[in-house]
Amino acid sequence: MNDDELLPSWSEGAAKTAILHFAGSVTGPGGSYVPPAERIAAFDNDGTLWCEKPQYVQAEFLFRRWKQMAEADPAKAKEQPCKALAENDRAWLAGLLGHVPDLVKGAGEAYEGITVAAFEQAVQEFFATAAHPTLGLPYTKAGYQPMRELLDLLHARDFLVFVCSGGGRDFIRPVSQQMYGIPRERVIGSATTVQYRDGELYRTKDVEQPIDDGPGKPEHVWMRTGRKPLLAAGNADGDVPMLETARFSMLIRHDDADREFAYDTGAEKALAEAKERGWTVVSMHDDFTVVFGP
Amino acid sequence: MNDDELLPSWSEGAAKTAILHFAGSVTGPGGSYVPPAERIAAFDNDGTLWCEKPQYVQAEFLFRRWKQMAEADPAKAKEQPCKALAENDRAWLAGLLGHVPDLVKGAGEAYEGITVAAFEQAVQEFFATAAHPTLGLPYTKAGYQPMRELLDLLHARDFLVFVCSGGGRDFIRPVSQQMYGIPRERVIGSATTVQYRDGELYRTKDVEQPIDDGPGKPEHVWMRTGRKPLLAAGNADGDVPMLETARFSMLIRHDDADREFAYDTGAEKALAEAKERGWTVVSMHDDFTVVFGP
Repeated sequence: MNDDELLPSWSEGAAKTAILHFAGSVTGPGGSYVPPAERIAAFDNDGTLWCEKPQYVQAEFLFRRWKQMAEADPAKAKEQPCKALAENDRAWLAGLLGHVPDLVKGAGEAYEGITVAAFEQAVQEFFATAAHPTLGLPYTKAGYQPMRELLDLLHARDFLVFVCSGGGRDFIRPVSQQMYGIPRERVIGSATTVQYRDGELYRTKDVEQPIDDGPGKPEHVWMRTGRKPLLAAGNADGDVPMLETARFSMLIRHDDADREFAYDTGAEKALAEAKERGWTVVSMHDDFTVVFGP
Repeated sequence: MNDDELLPSWSEGAAKTAILHFAGSVTGPGGSYVPPAERIAAFDNDGTLWCEKPQYVQAEFLFRRWKQMAEADPAKAKEQPCKALAENDRAWLAGLLGHVPDLVKGAGEAYEGITVAAFEQAVQEFFATAAHPTLGLPYTKAGYQPMRELLDLLHARDFLVFVCSGGGRDFIRPVSQQMYGIPRERVIGSATTVQYRDGELYRTKDVEQPIDDGPGKPEHVWMRTGRKPLLAAGNADGDVPMLETARFSMLIRHDDADREFAYDTGAEKALAEAKERGWTVVSMHDDFTVVFGP
């Protein structure tokens, strides 16, 4: 199969051409060849591989939990964050969503003390039952089909592809193989620490430092792989430091209100830097023939 | 090639039989089959994959650095740890070696602020020039040949093999492919954090928590892979928690003063627990036909 057949959901255009040229140049004979061991690719998750609007998928997961906690314990229902769920205070919740560290902290506290296996089961139950509020798709189908094709292309070219998410590592791992063809050990993300006791591993509420956002992204990629990425993809200002460390950098632009969402908010710095540095900007409107898979 | 031919430096005996039986049972047809994605193997490094006596390899690396620092700066030569090197105070240094957290801390401070690339170069220079003080081998040849054969067997059986070291992750990565056939992204270990600035990554003196020893070992394996190990190998009390989480656990016993070193100190708890739990104890004296490679 040639490269062209591997990206069927991409329109012909500058973005597709640049991607195929880069993938060809580092894997084919010639001066730009890079050995397979050094072909690290790092992809942001929210807004780069799956849909992050109207709010983060993990926020839905967390809100469910807080709602359950409010229902189970009247005392909790009087305090934030459970109070906001009990009262459906969307303004309070929207404020929280604007601040990743608070979300990561909240996620840690909501599942403190349970085993890692019990947490995985909660995540799997969520993905088995929850659906995207406006797209009418289960969340496991709310990944971008053209990006999945790109992941497959990179895998076929012997890249080691990592998810590098500001969101929860342990929230993505249970679905990464199914959604992205990426095994769980190649999912990097923000996380709480775990604690070993008597043969078992328990979640704590302590957030692992740094969180995997902003400068934490290239720091995490380096800590986990011992390399800078050869290729990196993101969609927001929090991805800029990671994109700065890669040889080939892609920025996904959300400009398709009909098929997905249109927003540049939170990507202002990224778009400016993409222009300045010549990063490949991918327009979901122009470069994707379809957004979601069948 | 059958399994037998893959472990040529192992004597026939209970240890070899148990290893081959386990590797066969989880990869062959039958009720014990485990899919490749779940075949995580975790190996301690010091004393399990390479020689750790008369002192940790990384301690030699660190002592070199402290000696250089003492020579370059007379003020530093008057303070510990450089003072101990300037005065060749082996008793002080021996005391330090008994406490892994202090060693990890010292390693962080000794290389604070340099780029990760500069640190890698320092490690490579060390391995290119240093030799084991009593074995008469370069350190890159002071890995155990039978263990390398076991790693190769596991790789051939589609295991994902990780080094999980209480010692420095970034000290092992530059030689892990050459010595063990293990790529750098599969080296887990204690580390300092790194800091991103302007496209580059710098070492800090801050030690990443937890350090990768004792309970930190299964915690690290889980954080890095999202799984407990299917197979784990160690040689000391600090490996016990990791061995407790594995389906098949191996304990290397150092009982060959002629070819390597003989010591049970620091492995008392491990040996007792191996007996209690039926772990496979590997006697270097009885189970290894050779210890080091050609």
